[in-house]
Amino acid sequence: MRISVKKVGIIGVSGYTGLELIKALLPHPSFEISYLGASTDGEISEIFPQLRGVFEMHVEAADARVAAQRCDLIFLALPHEKAMEFAREILKFKSVKVVDLSADYRLSRELYEKNYTTHLDPRNLAHAVYGLPELNREKIRAARLTANPGCYPTCSILALAPFVRLLDPGIGVFIDAKSGVSGAGKALKTSSHFVSVNENANAYSPISHRHADEIKEQLQILKGGEFSTLFVPNLLPITRGMLVSAFGVLQKSVDAEAVLREFYENEPFVRVRNEPVSIKNVVGTHFCDIFVKTAGDKIWINSAIDNLLRGASSQAVANANLMCGFAEATALPRIAHGI
Amino acid sequence: MRISVKKVGIIGVSGYTGLELIKALLPHPSFEISYLGASTDGEISEIFPQLRGVFEMHVEAADARVAAQRCDLIFLALPHEKAMEFAREILKFKSVKVVDLSADYRLSRELYEKNYTTHLDPRNLAHAVYGLPELNREKIRAARLTANPGCYPTCSILALAPFVRLLDPGIGVFIDAKSGVSGAGKALKTSSHFVSVNENANAYSPISHRHADEIKEQLQILKGGEFSTLFVPNLLPITRGMLVSAFGVLQKSVDAEAVLREFYENEPFVRVRNEPVSIKNVVGTHFCDIFVKTAGDKIWINSAIDNLLRGASSQAVANANLMCGFAEATALPRIAHGI
Amino acid sequence: MRISVKKVGIIGVSGYTGLELIKALLPHPSFEISYLGASTDGEISEIFPQLRGVFEMHVEAADARVAAQRCDLIFLALPHEKAMEFAREILKFKSVKVVDLSADYRLSRELYEKNYTTHLDPRNLAHAVYGLPELNREKIRAARLTANPGCYPTCSILALAPFVRLLDPGIGVFIDAKSGVSGAGKALKTSSHFVSVNENANAYSPISHRHADEIKEQLQILKGGEFSTLFVPNLLPITRGMLVSAFGVLQKSVDAEAVLREFYENEPFVRVRNEPVSIKNVVGTHFCDIFVKTAGDKIWINSAIDNLLRGASSQAVANANLMCGFAEATALPRIAHGI
Amino acid sequence: MRISVKKVGIIGVSGYTGLELIKALLPHPSFEISYLGASTDGEISEIFPQLRGVFEMHVEAADARVAAQRCDLIFLALPHEKAMEFAREILKFKSVKVVDLSADYRLSRELYEKNYTTHLDPRNLAHAVYGLPELNREKIRAARLTANPGCYPTCSILALAPFVRLLDPGIGVFIDAKSGVSGAGKALKTSSHFVSVNENANAYSPISHRHADEIKEQLQILKGGEFSTLFVPNLLPITRGMLVSAFGVLQKSVDAEAVLREFYENEPFVRVRNEPVSIKNVVGTHFCDIFVKTAGDKIWINSAIDNLLRGASSQAVANANLMCGFAEATALPRIAHGI
Repeated sequence: MRISVKKVGIIGVSGYTGLELIKALLPHPSFEISYLGASTDGEISEIFPQLRGVFEMHVEAADARVAAQRCDLIFLALPHEKAMEFAREILKFKSVKVVDLSADYRLSRELYEKNYTTHLDPRNLAHAVYGLPELNREKIRAARLTANPGCYPTCSILALAPFVRLLDPGIGVFIDAKSGVSGAGKALKTSSHFVSVNENANAYSPISHRHADEIKEQLQILKGGEFSTLFVPNLLPITRGMLVSAFGVLQKSVDAEAVLREFYENEPFVRVRNEPVSIKNVVGTHFCDIFVKTAGDKIWINSAIDNLLRGASSQAVANANLMCGFAEATALPRIAHGI
Repeated sequence: MRISVKKVGIIGVSGYTGLELIKALLPHPSFEISYLGASTDGEISEIFPQLRGVFEMHVEAADARVAAQRCDLIFLALPHEKAMEFAREILKFKSVKVVDLSADYRLSRELYEKNYTTHLDPRNLAHAVYGLPELNREKIRAARLTANPGCYPTCSILALAPFVRLLDPGIGVFIDAKSGVSGAGKALKTSSHFVSVNENANAYSPISHRHADEIKEQLQILKGGEFSTLFVPNLLPITRGMLVSAFGVLQKSVDAEAVLREFYENEPFVRVRNEPVSIKNVVGTHFCDIFVKTAGDKIWINSAIDNLLRGASSQAVANANLMCGFAEATALPRIAHGI
Repeated sequence: MRISVKKVGIIGVSGYTGLELIKALLPHPSFEISYLGASTDGEISEIFPQLRGVFEMHVEAADARVAAQRCDLIFLALPHEKAMEFAREILKFKSVKVVDLSADYRLSRELYEKNYTTHLDPRNLAHAVYGLPELNREKIRAARLTANPGCYPTCSILALAPFVRLLDPGIGVFIDAKSGVSGAGKALKTSSHFVSVNENANAYSPISHRHADEIKEQLQILKGGEFSTLFVPNLLPITRGMLVSAFGVLQKSVDAEAVLREFYENEPFVRVRNEPVSIKNVVGTHFCDIFVKTAGDKIWINSAIDNLLRGASSQAVANANLMCGFAEATALPRIAHGI
Repeated sequence: MRISVKKVGIIGVSGYTGLELIKALLPHPSFEISYLGASTDGEISEIFPQLRGVFEMHVEAADARVAAQRCDLIFLALPHEKAMEFAREILKFKSVKVVDLSADYRLSRELYEKNYTTHLDPRNLAHAVYGLPELNREKIRAARLTANPGCYPTCSILALAPFVRLLDPGIGVFIDAKSGVSGAGKALKTSSHFVSVNENANAYSPISHRHADEIKEQLQILKGGEFSTLFVPNLLPITRGMLVSAFGVLQKSVDAEAVLREFYENEPFVRVRNEPVSIKNVVGTHFCDIFVKTAGDKIWINSAIDNLLRGASSQAVANANLMCGFAEATALPRIAHGI
């Protein structure tokens, strides 16, 4: 039997997640890149010189209609707000599906508007699926619009999902997360200048970071009720990778490692580790590594992902695989050259 | 009036803290380096080529008696166990004082023997003073033997001291700490190999790290009772610097920043910050920067130090200043070339 | 038509080049990893935790006979001297081929013994082929034993091959090369300690580095006569990647870029660039990027490779592809996740 | 006898060299910072948070007249062109001296206008002194306007000065130089973004870099005639430090190390090394370390400096010391905390 090939497009291809989408799609047997869009046109191998001799394609000034007419599924690798403007137009074409890598469809309208801006597309927000395959696999299969989770939420929620019902909800969870600089994107900011970052580390947007409410909302869905979440992100002097330390208080004694292993028993892209996780072991891959340790009623959960892959682009491909009826694992990166 | 000059020695000078002691002592108006000892003899500018043309002196095969006869005060920059062997001999010379940078005199005997080894010098342990000037200034002035605090304990305790009586003691504190690689010393270990550390980050010895009990014991002294402490250290791909995130639950509502500012009102080497602290702002100095933020009954306290200076060598000089009757701040580094 | 599958082994799999060989062989359609050997036995995913869930195989205490009986081709990822001990035994099995990643078969016996040690296997040295496909493709196809070039020689010779006949041979070439730390291997050395390398750079073994004679010998073969070569390697604070600056004096005026483009016209893994090359564009791949610029009679040639791939493991796979009759490009990495 | 105190100002204080000037001037016994100017006003400890509690001063919107009225000597840490606009105004005040850290007075008018822009102040250019103390000490003492050399020229010229008369002038010198990112300043550029620099290295502006003519012009002055100079700078993933590899052909056999040692016999801030130089040994200091090695008629000269200190700010203080009649070495940094 012949596998059908789906035509895909990437809008916002000139950023880091755009490049990672290309890398993930190049070896994919069933997706064919049929459209690349960005704010201005150009050649993809001029934007990313490492693609010279590997993948040459013209990038068009992005147009939702043109993209929709040429593709079965479109990845939106755009800033928030911009993404929903495109999604709204693309989804008017009934045969086209969308994986949105921005925050625009990840939150309830109320929390979205608290953290971001006025929502421009509540109609599609109503049916968007939160695209974390380990939690929402069946819904993603049926979705026309998947909201690809944020990097911090992916790493935090995968760590906490097995435990959220076991923790004291008033104390809830304290999350200290660390991310590489690529998480802040290609934009030129003082905080991304080499001299600012190198030989440094610091927290930023503590407690008030926009991903805090995304994490909390998902944990409350899992808990089925209120659940306190305090989230502090830190910037590390590395290009990519993400590390989470989560602390809580157990309501009763459990074998935490057994809970973790059972929860992810059949998940090939979550690896339960015997020792603290390392960014090096997951960078360049779709894996989430998790470790847990308890002391009395206290618990520490430790997880790591590649912020640009599991925290963005490979997760988007996993979602696209599900939405198109392909095996979820198809072409997801499992090992990295280059590190 | 002429300021008296004290002769000082460094035993274990070939490690990172030995070098930092030299750097801190060179501009000191009242300390004269009179003895350098290490496991083998040699020239200091061969061990540390950056000292060529700056400070030339012979390093002797360390001998406690020789050192004691030549010095008024001796810094021990040795591994634990080795340090108490030397301290015990040196302190037989009644006129000589010791600042020990190892763990040998930091803990109660019980906790020491739980975490390290059999204590060889309980007699001196009984009168050793925990050398954190902001907490024990008067005792240090009177001490013959100061136990210089560990780097993680210095950064954690300075952050938590103002708050320990305000926090729920059962929940206590969750500490996620991050350190540069110099904290692990010059020894060749896989975990210090450039390829292991670079573009990586990971927790190590979570909960069970030896500094956990040192932090807990000091916090309990401050609290005057039981106080839960869960400590997780992480390794960062930087040479030096240390960052602490501490989380707890307040027993009643307070203005946390006001508490912090009042506690350190007259302390010139603790800077209360208006935003999260950065390693860059303290590396090369004796400063501890602290920031605090609350959300409901939850509190997050954030501190940074230079692990080799405030976490070791400049703190040793501060203690030596106090023990010798000099102004505590004498020659303590306040700004760094080189970063 | 069915493609035949060849069984391959890796001896010395616990080092960096061993890991890169595994990564390169995993997606290969025609090589099946049938033997892994190292100095002690163990599990490959314990040696390299990133392989957990990706590739699990037992590593045996290396035995030349056992390996030879189980494989069609064996990669030797061993230190020099050790490699020829294994090669000599393995090549007694007439059906088995060897790609040696050490220096043992790269040089004439005279230069080998000057730079390394007494040669233990002159019989096989006599027919070993220098495994740089762009220069020796046909000989490699026919070889039973390929000497995989050193990383510095690969990067330098590919840069200089088009120009060696055009340069003044008495002045010859001055090569300033820079390498990431992985080039020095996993062994624990002061010069690989994070604190030594980070925020530093320095030349080492200037002029006398062992790769100098390897470069010079190959350039003289290309030149067909004497050719002066002065080689200075530098260590950079990066994990992988290599950069070469080569300077010389042209004997007559040429269009250097045209010379370069013509020389590599049909080579898919050499990319002639329009601007200075960047390590970032080649890390994780088999590409060698080259740029050239002249000023009067002076020429500057600039090249970059991944020291562990084009400078070792992917070049070994390219050689193995040729030796086994497969398309040279099969499974060679062209794009990297993880950077 | 009382040492007179001179009042100094810094215009352009918000950049890296401005900060380093402050750090170098703070411990200076004879300079008092009396004026800080920048493009907009503010507090110095808000621009540089590491100065909080160390040095607090108001930064004014820069005004040449105000600065000149308040100071005996002014450091210009401005971009080229801007610097000569200020110098021209300041030097109208006959009692005021200027150390210009820009390129505006470093070159002959012809070469300046070839590399930069129309010169606005040829009158002062005519008497400006090239501020490299080892070469022009007496002229600097008498100067009203010193042109502080570029970082690459300082590191290259100090390496080559002892040898320029011994080298074949037609072949001249090939310089491969490497610099940390701080050399490119605080401006936000793609080439200074952490993700661009980290785990990368590349040449830029090869042969045509503006410092090439500055180096060549000074070498020709030293040579007393034509001298070929080919200069290629590279960017390294480090914050500060600079390394030079220079290659040439000797006209006759010499003991190169003896030549070097004799040339710098009485220079306390040039250290002749027995092995290749390391950036680590000079960062944070005013030292230039040099090593030399020959092979037949070929010579390799290797030097290192801190690009922000010896390549900018500490050299400016050395020049100011000379211009004000103080000992040249006063307050020049010799050892660095922080590395």
